[in-house]
Amino acid sequence: MSTVIFSLRRPSGDAEPTVVLPLVRRTRDPHEGLWALPGGWLGDAENLEGAASRTLAETTSLDPSYLEQLYAFGAVDRSPSRVISIVYWALVREEVASTAHRERVDDDNVAWFDADDLPPLAFDHTAIVGYALWRLRNKVGYSRIAHGLLTDEFTVADLREVYQAILGRRLDPANFRRQVESSGNLLPTDRFRTGSHRPARLYRSNPDVELADRGPLAE
Amino acid sequence: MSTVIFSLRRPSGDAEPTVVLPLVRRTRDPHEGLWALPGGWLGDAENLEGAASRTLAETTSLDPSYLEQLYAFGAVDRSPSRVISIVYWALVREEVASTAHRERVDDDNVAWFDADDLPPLAFDHTAIVGYALWRLRNKVGYSRIAHGLLTDEFTVADLREVYQAILGRRLDPANFRRQVESSGNLLPTDRFRTGSHRPARLYRSNPDVELADRGPLAE
Repeated sequence: MSTVIFSLRRPSGDAEPTVVLPLVRRTRDPHEGLWALPGGWLGDAENLEGAASRTLAETTSLDPSYLEQLYAFGAVDRSPSRVISIVYWALVREEVASTAHRERVDDDNVAWFDADDLPPLAFDHTAIVGYALWRLRNKVGYSRIAHGLLTDEFTVADLREVYQAILGRRLDPANFRRQVESSGNLLPTDRFRTGSHRPARLYRSNPDVELADRGPLAE
Repeated sequence: MSTVIFSLRRPSGDAEPTVVLPLVRRTRDPHEGLWALPGGWLGDAENLEGAASRTLAETTSLDPSYLEQLYAFGAVDRSPSRVISIVYWALVREEVASTAHRERVDDDNVAWFDADDLPPLAFDHTAIVGYALWRLRNKVGYSRIAHGLLTDEFTVADLREVYQAILGRRLDPANFRRQVESSGNLLPTDRFRTGSHRPARLYRSNPDVELADRGPLAE
């Protein structure tokens, strides 16, 4: 079991966010010293999603806003012994990840990396991250999953920056505003963010809309 | 490992097709006598997709037009012993399934059932089929996967009947024709089907368009 955990990081307060994920340095063979996805063995009394949540908590102390099975990877040669890895992927909100990151900054064996700038990874984990990013990019196109990376209240510009970070391209601000305002996924608050720019209205996610349609698996 | 194999069946030559799948009667406990998805154990030297293909061939002698991993099911209580089942789903073309069906009609332990009218199934297989149907219904909306159920040459009405069978509702013939003709997924032939109706042009699938976008997993 491994989990790809995506969050956002802003290099500085006003900078555009980037998609980041935590990696764990392997302390034993195979691939000792290489970075790898957080993970562990499935317990006898654990469901798959339970094991993924436990892994996530143990590695990063984080509570995910979204958790979904990604894929089972089982190529014969992916590890020296035969290991089938059932991989989950998760989103954690920006503020949560920042706090956890600060708390664990003294742990040399866990670190957050830019998704676009990863070190060499153990096993087939580079391919796994690539597939998880592809799933994330696809899914932002037909769900409101991007909200799972944001804090409780956010501006339309914040949300656009999340889409831009995920999709890796700029979006037209006026078109983007029109689309999200007509989507029914945003609830306006009566609060505004003030600062160096003109005041921007703060929105909340509509809790009546699921982050993504899980179909029969949601039951 | 189990595989949900979808195909089409026409009750008679001119009737609308329905989505069908093959089931295997269990000849030992647990759940002896109940119908179940075809499957088997993963071999030491097999990749996951290889095992799914082998299962498919052993059970039904069928060659799939589409094969994809569905999900890993691992609830602790899904079987008396702890069994994690990595499930694939497949499409086989109507004509292939009909031939195979005739060949195996003397095998009491394999039979094809309407997806909408299944007997009680072993383990969590009813839920698995429900999830596979949900995936199929979703996927016809954003891919040309429905072509994987058709013969090499087909009319627009044939294709519409496949969509109707999958989605469980009628589609407007004129709208449907407009959409598929503008999709770039169909190549017109210079042949027509004649019979009791007015002649209808036969089309082929555009082989340059993948049945569905597999992303990095296609590599």
